[in-house]
Amino acid sequence: MTVAPPLAPPPRLLMGPGPITADPRVLRAMSAQLVGQYDPWMTATMTETMGLYRQVFRTDNEQTFLVDGTSRAGIEAALVSLLEPGDRVLVPVFGRFGHLLVEIAERCRAEVHTVEVPWGEVVPAELVEEAVVRVRPKLVAVVQGDTSTTMCQPLAEIGEVCRRHDTLLYVDATASLGGNPFETDAWGIDVATAGLQKCLGGPSGSAPITISDAAAALIASRKRVEAGIREAGDDDAEAGRTTATIASNYLDLAQVMDYWGPRRLNHHTEATTMLYGARECARLLVEEGLDAAVERHRLHGEAMLAGVRGLGLSVFGDVAHKMHNVVAVEIPDGIDGDAARGAMLTDFGIEIGTSFGPLHGRVWRIGTMGWNARTDAVLTTLACLEQVLRAGGASVVPGAGVAAAREVYAG
Amino acid sequence: MTVAPPLAPPPRLLMGPGPITADPRVLRAMSAQLVGQYDPWMTATMTETMGLYRQVFRTDNEQTFLVDGTSRAGIEAALVSLLEPGDRVLVPVFGRFGHLLVEIAERCRAEVHTVEVPWGEVVPAELVEEAVVRVRPKLVAVVQGDTSTTMCQPLAEIGEVCRRHDTLLYVDATASLGGNPFETDAWGIDVATAGLQKCLGGPSGSAPITISDAAAALIASRKRVEAGIREAGDDDAEAGRTTATIASNYLDLAQVMDYWGPRRLNHHTEATTMLYGARECARLLVEEGLDAAVERHRLHGEAMLAGVRGLGLSVFGDVAHKMHNVVAVEIPDGIDGDAARGAMLTDFGIEIGTSFGPLHGRVWRIGTMGWNARTDAVLTTLACLEQVLRAGGASVVPGAGVAAAREVYAG
Repeated sequence: MTVAPPLAPPPRLLMGPGPITADPRVLRAMSAQLVGQYDPWMTATMTETMGLYRQVFRTDNEQTFLVDGTSRAGIEAALVSLLEPGDRVLVPVFGRFGHLLVEIAERCRAEVHTVEVPWGEVVPAELVEEAVVRVRPKLVAVVQGDTSTTMCQPLAEIGEVCRRHDTLLYVDATASLGGNPFETDAWGIDVATAGLQKCLGGPSGSAPITISDAAAALIASRKRVEAGIREAGDDDAEAGRTTATIASNYLDLAQVMDYWGPRRLNHHTEATTMLYGARECARLLVEEGLDAAVERHRLHGEAMLAGVRGLGLSVFGDVAHKMHNVVAVEIPDGIDGDAARGAMLTDFGIEIGTSFGPLHGRVWRIGTMGWNARTDAVLTTLACLEQVLRAGGASVVPGAGVAAAREVYAG
Repeated sequence: MTVAPPLAPPPRLLMGPGPITADPRVLRAMSAQLVGQYDPWMTATMTETMGLYRQVFRTDNEQTFLVDGTSRAGIEAALVSLLEPGDRVLVPVFGRFGHLLVEIAERCRAEVHTVEVPWGEVVPAELVEEAVVRVRPKLVAVVQGDTSTTMCQPLAEIGEVCRRHDTLLYVDATASLGGNPFETDAWGIDVATAGLQKCLGGPSGSAPITISDAAAALIASRKRVEAGIREAGDDDAEAGRTTATIASNYLDLAQVMDYWGPRRLNHHTEATTMLYGARECARLLVEEGLDAAVERHRLHGEAMLAGVRGLGLSVFGDVAHKMHNVVAVEIPDGIDGDAARGAMLTDFGIEIGTSFGPLHGRVWRIGTMGWNARTDAVLTTLACLEQVLRAGGASVVPGAGVAAAREVYAG
């Protein structure tokens, strides 16, 4: 028998691309004791949480709830519930998470088409429209904010393209929601998913999702009620189906909608503590006001951008299309990127991010999001990064990073 | 804008079939602040958690970790990663959760065969062996403890049957692990999954899993590394595959093994707060000692059983094969089962369970598990149930339930 000591995480300021330091109020809400899954208080709280996320997603969609898993579970739930084998899907790819949509859609046995642009750019709407006309997809699936490149894909025009050609639109808003403008209804988005661990200021493990009435009807047409809890009427409702059964049970949104909806049909056992956390993330965001939260992310992102430039560093990608909440900083010549990140962590308790694929070793990714979109977090990170750069042999004007950020704050 | 009030769950003693009241020490561990997912402390904590769950599952399996979702996510991860389309699987069914295994295996496009016994019984090993000989399945998938009937399926002999006929054995131990004997290695179980919300005393949302070397090799043979994070060598490793790619990305155990293993290949973003909770559940169980925890569940289950009988109630099913941690109590004639459950909740803050399918309206399910396998929880529940029964018009000997339970405690 090997007993482990009580949990004692080291103090960290998480300034990477996410997960980030959770808002202590979210952690406090998550420490509340459990209530049974069909307790009237619990079902009322689930319904209330749906209302809060309608405000976060800016939508009237009845079907707005949580998938019990990380943001990736939300993505797969959306794709596996929307796509039948052989369906055509178009994925505009501008970074790693576009590739993830391709990967997941392929596992749904969809016929996947892509339009790609180089990392550091966003996809022009005309390119998407040209491909929609050519491919005639059932679904366009696109990432809003791809942390691998920091780019924030404009979506309003893609929404128009999809409406014009009667195509469904799915958006992965994991990295962007709450920190950048997002309009489910105004932009004509059918399904959007997110996670808590970025601008929402919570821990990973719950995936908010919203589904338009049209998409919900399509998903419901594939519903199959489980043996063991089937009731009179389920056979009739499912008779004569031509749709393929959804390939997953756990991520079957038809079943999950029935669990959150008035029928309250048993499916999984709701992850109550994650629900508490997700509710608190949305509650705080709504209390602050969505516009104010986006503006806060804009301001601190701007300050961090000015700060790293003040330190003499270059920034990767099309900065005009950068997400508010993360910046990709080019690692200066002569500096060992991983050693510098190690020094930030070991000497200062601050985490900044490494990179994937073509950017690996070329850029650090520095986030300012959720609870950490704060002046002290930005200035402390810049102050410590200056020390690490200098220790690594880079020539830095003393105080120039912090000073540049302060100028942004001074307006 | 509609702002919701701060979270304030009502006090509840959860004495149903799970989820149950979480151990406050687990909730406290879950309130710890986050650390980055590749922080040396985080990866060390993940490795430590693997070791703790090896002790809980009684196994030497290297591949012992957490799936980020509820217990149902663990079940589906196991089945979708083991089963290829067309594979034959045999499911011994003795309650609702056997039907769930059938349902999930069907969605994996496996060829599913069952052996069924009436609710309230367990499946004789001879019946399983006869079917294994007839069907020649790749996998036998069986529930250990099915809360729908309270039965605890004996597994040692089924393990022998599977060894004898060279068949893989998967066990869903969600409802039973930690409260009933469970021996992964000694019983020859290849893959087992669980959840936190039963005898482990935590909230739903993390699914511990253990995988034998043979099963892990089979799963790894289906591995496909995602585009976007592929490295030199991945193409070679995947060339000439005859196995089908795993149909899920999120629940692809080949990828999840690489995430928890030395390669630390990026997959999902670990649900850190749930990891903290899962680690604390296992830590407390190992500290108490697995045998002691099982004995505690036996004792309090025995006391609850004696108590409900002392109240003049009958118990459903083959009591010799009942799980330690839940009892199905027949609702007496003349008592409205749902009204009585409502009175328990409203007047006393105690939740007891309703039932599914053929038992709906016939039995209540009363649990004594995890944190609530305690004398005061048992005696309080019996005291309050006596009041509710009397108020409903049942004839009850005053104090007889509590007295019968006390006799068990007195030895």
